[in-house]
Amino acid sequence: MKAFELRGFGLDSLVLTERPDPVPGPFEVVVRMRGASLNYRDLVLLRGTYDPNLRFPFVPLSDGAGEVVAVGPGVTRVKPGERVVLSYVQDWVAGEPVPSLVARRLGGPTDGVLAEYVKVPEHGLVHAPTHLSDVEAATLPIAAVTAWHVLFGVGRVRPGDTVLVEGTGGVSLFALQLARLAGARVLVTSGSDEKLARAKALGASAGIHYRKTPEWDEAVLALTGGRGVDHVVEVAGGANLGRALRAVRLGGEVSVVGFLEGMRSELELTQAIRRCVTLRAVSAGSRTSLEHLIRALEAHAVRPVVDRVFPFTEARAALEHLASGQHFGKVALAFPG
Amino acid sequence: MKAFELRGFGLDSLVLTERPDPVPGPFEVVVRMRGASLNYRDLVLLRGTYDPNLRFPFVPLSDGAGEVVAVGPGVTRVKPGERVVLSYVQDWVAGEPVPSLVARRLGGPTDGVLAEYVKVPEHGLVHAPTHLSDVEAATLPIAAVTAWHVLFGVGRVRPGDTVLVEGTGGVSLFALQLARLAGARVLVTSGSDEKLARAKALGASAGIHYRKTPEWDEAVLALTGGRGVDHVVEVAGGANLGRALRAVRLGGEVSVVGFLEGMRSELELTQAIRRCVTLRAVSAGSRTSLEHLIRALEAHAVRPVVDRVFPFTEARAALEHLASGQHFGKVALAFPG
Amino acid sequence: MKAFELRGFGLDSLVLTERPDPVPGPFEVVVRMRGASLNYRDLVLLRGTYDPNLRFPFVPLSDGAGEVVAVGPGVTRVKPGERVVLSYVQDWVAGEPVPSLVARRLGGPTDGVLAEYVKVPEHGLVHAPTHLSDVEAATLPIAAVTAWHVLFGVGRVRPGDTVLVEGTGGVSLFALQLARLAGARVLVTSGSDEKLARAKALGASAGIHYRKTPEWDEAVLALTGGRGVDHVVEVAGGANLGRALRAVRLGGEVSVVGFLEGMRSELELTQAIRRCVTLRAVSAGSRTSLEHLIRALEAHAVRPVVDRVFPFTEARAALEHLASGQHFGKVALAFPG
Amino acid sequence: MKAFELRGFGLDSLVLTERPDPVPGPFEVVVRMRGASLNYRDLVLLRGTYDPNLRFPFVPLSDGAGEVVAVGPGVTRVKPGERVVLSYVQDWVAGEPVPSLVARRLGGPTDGVLAEYVKVPEHGLVHAPTHLSDVEAATLPIAAVTAWHVLFGVGRVRPGDTVLVEGTGGVSLFALQLARLAGARVLVTSGSDEKLARAKALGASAGIHYRKTPEWDEAVLALTGGRGVDHVVEVAGGANLGRALRAVRLGGEVSVVGFLEGMRSELELTQAIRRCVTLRAVSAGSRTSLEHLIRALEAHAVRPVVDRVFPFTEARAALEHLASGQHFGKVALAFPG
Repeated sequence: MKAFELRGFGLDSLVLTERPDPVPGPFEVVVRMRGASLNYRDLVLLRGTYDPNLRFPFVPLSDGAGEVVAVGPGVTRVKPGERVVLSYVQDWVAGEPVPSLVARRLGGPTDGVLAEYVKVPEHGLVHAPTHLSDVEAATLPIAAVTAWHVLFGVGRVRPGDTVLVEGTGGVSLFALQLARLAGARVLVTSGSDEKLARAKALGASAGIHYRKTPEWDEAVLALTGGRGVDHVVEVAGGANLGRALRAVRLGGEVSVVGFLEGMRSELELTQAIRRCVTLRAVSAGSRTSLEHLIRALEAHAVRPVVDRVFPFTEARAALEHLASGQHFGKVALAFPG
Repeated sequence: MKAFELRGFGLDSLVLTERPDPVPGPFEVVVRMRGASLNYRDLVLLRGTYDPNLRFPFVPLSDGAGEVVAVGPGVTRVKPGERVVLSYVQDWVAGEPVPSLVARRLGGPTDGVLAEYVKVPEHGLVHAPTHLSDVEAATLPIAAVTAWHVLFGVGRVRPGDTVLVEGTGGVSLFALQLARLAGARVLVTSGSDEKLARAKALGASAGIHYRKTPEWDEAVLALTGGRGVDHVVEVAGGANLGRALRAVRLGGEVSVVGFLEGMRSELELTQAIRRCVTLRAVSAGSRTSLEHLIRALEAHAVRPVVDRVFPFTEARAALEHLASGQHFGKVALAFPG
Repeated sequence: MKAFELRGFGLDSLVLTERPDPVPGPFEVVVRMRGASLNYRDLVLLRGTYDPNLRFPFVPLSDGAGEVVAVGPGVTRVKPGERVVLSYVQDWVAGEPVPSLVARRLGGPTDGVLAEYVKVPEHGLVHAPTHLSDVEAATLPIAAVTAWHVLFGVGRVRPGDTVLVEGTGGVSLFALQLARLAGARVLVTSGSDEKLARAKALGASAGIHYRKTPEWDEAVLALTGGRGVDHVVEVAGGANLGRALRAVRLGGEVSVVGFLEGMRSELELTQAIRRCVTLRAVSAGSRTSLEHLIRALEAHAVRPVVDRVFPFTEARAALEHLASGQHFGKVALAFPG
Repeated sequence: MKAFELRGFGLDSLVLTERPDPVPGPFEVVVRMRGASLNYRDLVLLRGTYDPNLRFPFVPLSDGAGEVVAVGPGVTRVKPGERVVLSYVQDWVAGEPVPSLVARRLGGPTDGVLAEYVKVPEHGLVHAPTHLSDVEAATLPIAAVTAWHVLFGVGRVRPGDTVLVEGTGGVSLFALQLARLAGARVLVTSGSDEKLARAKALGASAGIHYRKTPEWDEAVLALTGGRGVDHVVEVAGGANLGRALRAVRLGGEVSVVGFLEGMRSELELTQAIRRCVTLRAVSAGSRTSLEHLIRALEAHAVRPVVDRVFPFTEARAALEHLASGQHFGKVALAFPG
């Protein structure tokens, strides 16, 4: 089969190659990939800034969906021909994360989905939502699960709450859509008026242009009667986190899920303590979160926002497009028929 | 001022009389009542089956809204002229219930709202929602707060969950409306096709006629692919609770908030244990729940379902109407201008 | 190997027989049993009152510990020679119970531990506590995990809380010991002065003889200054549950884990609602609970209370001893060297 | 009466003066102070680094206990002659913090306890623990309540957990004592071998000298088999927080309650996200936490560690002693007979 291998850090080390077709062992499933999607994690892994100890070669990309083509002995969860989504943290079925359950993660350190066929244990996949295409389904494992997990897994967003979503990338737009499903009011920040307008069309009640309004935390306070928001989905990091802490209400929660603008943030402790803020760092979620998410999306016929779909073979162009920051929603890949 | 007094058990003991106008002491507020609403609790209190130790005379009814007409020294939360809703459990501001905080309950044992003027401590009221009339606002303190509390206070309804609501009385319709706000799917039982149709118009996805389908728990299982619902809002009691336990999913929750059909239920322990059911008996909620509820109603411009409004002086007719079980939603009273 | 088979309902259908030695497949482990313990569940299963649909023959008993003697391909969690405890609900590793994860339960419907060798998937066992004998370790999977789960998994016992434990069987004594570890005060009921004395020696602060004091709920109120206990571990069921509801504080919790005295209880709904009681039916717990439990027992060198140890071949006598209700703590079996 | 007033920032602005004796209004209580205790907060308030907007003059100090000497109309919670502890956040009775309930805090911005008589609303005090002296009781409102709140209010420490406590000041030693009550294992850091020995005598299982072992996070990992602790009670701040994040287990919790070494910390986001850490900034707790704390201390006859008691009139010397960092436990004041 065809697969991309990463043979070292850097985009130039991404090579399309041939690998033997996988054969399912007991309790294993082989999936013919139909769609994949990209995450910021893929970029930092490639650059070598996230995990310097990666072992090469490996197949990158975490998010994928496709069709079951072969099952090994003992498999009961799926049958050949069924459409499935792979779970990013393969062994994390339910409950809280523990080291033994979060070790196997598709797209690093474990081989990922940028290949025509992928073999996973049967507990590491779920049935795809019936209302979504394969490419749409492939956008869920990291970004949508993270959004679900912060809002409804560890978090607890309720009707009437206000949620602040930073930016308009994958996690942010899923957070916007899911928070709306739960009856929350959503505020969005962006550096583009056009993106703010599109976010409003998706249900955001207000947008803040963080370049025109660099003190966007004050704008948030103004929009919430001085109270602050109940929940911030923090994807930017860097100096941004400080503003997030000032934009959240007394006793509010900031979910730290990304670091697009900086891997380090300075925390004003007195500010945090005075506001009794909970800062929750989150990385994806369990298969149960993926299942709950899919149930909610199906119930409301919500579709992911797919920015652009590249052919499988143009994975590099897709990664460069993601790196450009021009996207609104998910950047995805489609596999040939 | 005019007020109704209950001078003994039974509707015949409900007497319209004169009482001195209340004068606010320190931290107290006098409210001119504009709207009131009835709860099943009012009926069982009157009949003597709920609290045989009630002391007479007392002013019945728990749910009221009106206008602040006088404030005592030290009051800062409201000003004369402002529209307010009274909190049923007057001293339960926040947190879990403790005996000292739940002792003072309007409409029994404490004097209630069936009077032209009512005096409460300032911590026992909140500002009325701006989008509701006084009569609509008066429907919130018990029924809507109970629904909020079971779904979002102690409960945790999430988008994609399925909630089963029994009947179409006050708590049930609020639970239906609030669960919908939170992205849940709602099933409703009723003994009337017309009420089921109206419940669907309010957002229920399916209705079950419990007379035509006495084994309604099996209908619920069929509607949920055999899985059962995530949450039951149980208002009927009696033999009904047994069915509720069979209609809920493994690990699901049954909120016991009423006993319209019977004050006793037989519990099959093996059934409950095998399904790991949580049975949560709930009585109203704190002022914080009322505040969160109002915020959510305002954010979504949700209006309570008011079945019928009687004039203040016809409180007895209103109680009889409630007792008839003909109503759909809340039975309310309006006070003269 | 030797194994007991249940070939129909009733003790007379329990037959010692020969079965082929199990051979581990991929991800499977074969354990040579060293200890087993009995639960009330074994008795009701045998009698046919718990699950009339059981298929025969099957190997009974859920609780076992022993030594790994063979591992199949892919096994990484254990090695031959290591001491292990089997997890009762084999596939429930973590999180909340869902049907697909709780289907495989040792000792019914799945073959249990009353055999010289038992084969389980590697995720269905944990390392045995180093400070316990094999027989002691074998007492943990159902009774101790249930106690842990109700107090610290779904429950939340804190220092200074008061916990009421009914009786002195396996779950009850584990609940007593674990609640003490967490700094709670423990009250115990029993029908035997001698057992009450032994419970006090284990750390109970007071005991109530339920035959001498049939209104034991009033004794509990007296012992808690009229407030009631924070948590009841309810193992008796039947008419007992009604008293438990009156013995618990406002907003308190009753964990329903057994039905020794009756499979049905009458619930006074007004009583439950007025006290805002949470009634939580619980059946065992996940492997994570077993792991947390073992960590706590090791940290405090707590040993289970073993009432009596029978040889493996005298399983029937052990079951009859359990049925007699004479025991204090766990009834266990030892396997020949 | 005699009282200390702070008339500007700095210790030289602390002046012993005369103020009129307070007279209780409705629902108010006057307490004759018998004991007070100092917190780091008092020092930073005095220095002007915590709240630059303080209005002078005001009476400093938050923690106090004494005897009720007069009650105003309507008071039912206490009677003259009873021993009481004041609640630091006067109006925060229960539940989550909201701005209106946390505004009134003794010792800034509201007048504090460094006066012979203090007037508070009756809901702002609780009965003193019977087994403690007035000075001991006065150590509870901030430090012990904070420790309780982080471990058992928002946190959830269970038997067998490991808790890391930084330093040996007031909050830290209460956290040590309370975590031990709950069956947790406690690790302590300190810059003094003598203090580490004393912490071990109080129940810590290991101590780490952070000067001799500047990479104390690695020592913590070694002490926990590489796993990390379940909970860190972080009082130091500054560069310390980074180490705390590396010392906590996957999914663990760091309670940020102080900033003794620095008001700013740099947060490595990738580190936090990879470990799914929850960072919870906490400031004291509600009256309910104080009540639960007292119940637990009484049940186990736990006494606070009082480092040194100064006479009321020597408040300045006491503050200087606290500032020196020489103390082990709480620095307190006794009022003249």
